Amino acid sequence: MNQTIETLLQHRSIRSFTEDRLTQEQIHTIVDAAQMASTSSYMQAYTIMGVTDEKKKADIAEITGQDYVQNNGHLFVFCADMYRHQVKATDQQKQDMIQNIENTEHLLVSTIDATLAAQNGAIAAESMGLGMCYIGSIRNNIQRVDELLNLPPHVIPLFGMVVGYPKSKPEQKPRIPRKGIYFENEYNKEQHHALDQFDDKIRAYYENRSNNTRKDTWTDQMIRRFSNPMRMDVTTHVQNKGLNKR
Amino acid sequence: MNQTIETLLQHRSIRSFTEDRLTQEQIHTIVDAAQMASTSSYMQAYTIMGVTDEKKKADIAEITGQDYVQNNGHLFVFCADMYRHQVKATDQQKQDMIQNIENTEHLLVSTIDATLAAQNGAIAAESMGLGMCYIGSIRNNIQRVDELLNLPPHVIPLFGMVVGYPKSKPEQKPRIPRKGIYFENEYNKEQHHALDQFDDKIRAYYENRSNNTRKDTWTDQMIRRFSNPMRMDVTTHVQNKGLNKR
Repeated sequence: MNQTIETLLQHRSIRSFTEDRLTQEQIHTIVDAAQMASTSSYMQAYTIMGVTDEKKKADIAEITGQDYVQNNGHLFVFCADMYRHQVKATDQQKQDMIQNIENTEHLLVSTIDATLAAQNGAIAAESMGLGMCYIGSIRNNIQRVDELLNLPPHVIPLFGMVVGYPKSKPEQKPRIPRKGIYFENEYNKEQHHALDQFDDKIRAYYENRSNNTRKDTWTDQMIRRFSNPMRMDVTTHVQNKGLNKR
Repeated sequence: MNQTIETLLQHRSIRSFTEDRLTQEQIHTIVDAAQMASTSSYMQAYTIMGVTDEKKKADIAEITGQDYVQNNGHLFVFCADMYRHQVKATDQQKQDMIQNIENTEHLLVSTIDATLAAQNGAIAAESMGLGMCYIGSIRNNIQRVDELLNLPPHVIPLFGMVVGYPKSKPEQKPRIPRKGIYFENEYNKEQHHALDQFDDKIRAYYENRSNNTRKDTWTDQMIRRFSNPMRMDVTTHVQNKGLNKR
């Protein structure tokens, strides 16, 4: 196994960091690595925000409810961006482009592009001995985060990423067995067996881990999670920004 | 610079492969690495399909219009998956879950999860000396690809990924200057300067590269691309599968 695959397989999300900030050089390495990820038809349909303003950072941390969004080495926010393609376009050209900018296809394209870039950045960070965690909970108030970063039309914040020097090394969280995620030629709807196996594993994981032990399975956790309406306003916000409208 | 960052920075999409197939071990390494990527609140909201059936592969290749989708070491298709969470749920629980399954938030979640996994897989492959290319053009006929893979409700194909032994090593494609992608605290709408610089670079790149030389800039390419309606049916297909409906 090579060093890179070892880094990938060693991943765990880090939620507690020392007070050390990332250097400019580390930030640039992460951004440069992010930029070299594949991009749909060369669109590079994303923007990476860095949040260094302490007040803004505190506001975002409050939205997420997580203190490690405040206390870390650096906070990035990855955004889907369909604005850049129009910067040098004439008004007529912008009119011709809008049907594509606004369709679901290009919400997918820009979300995929931003995420490919982010994961390259995450791996670059981890390969340098840094820890990271994605912050989906910026979407608890997507509109407010959008305003804080002053994002123009056709740009939305997707998720944050905190990076820094790990204060602790949590256990690794198990994954669904490979046979429950990877299928050849036909989707396998008969997933009960793989999920039962996984639920047994997760029950043991939650009972035995060093912190926050509880009785739970993956399936129960998911059913509970989906039973309460979550971030229903994301739909409207995305459309208000001119994406996913048609 | 460590080996992992070197792998990230050396990326180029490979579109021409030898006839060698990936071994089962290589496929498993790629899938295992993919699974260790971060996942939104542990949802693991994706499925990885492998396409080994030559007839199906040919059909998908035809949809994409690319012969390297047929001729490669292995063809993966990454899917957003909100079906798995319901496999062990009762009918009542499924009813309670549906408002979340169907909202835009969870189209984002599942697209992000699938893409994080894919990029880990891509990097694992490249670190082993393999080449890869994402295949967004499976969405040229998303419904047909969906049918070929027999995907259930709440699962959609997002993009393919071909992997194999590179037959050639193309030039690296330049990226937008860092200052045009990474902003601190406030989005910078004044991107003309960075894009002018980039367009100059791209003009030179297209004029001087070893194959397919042409006169073009990034901005012109994007404006042309967006001026013709593209994959407008993705919207309907995604909604027909029960995602992005509210």
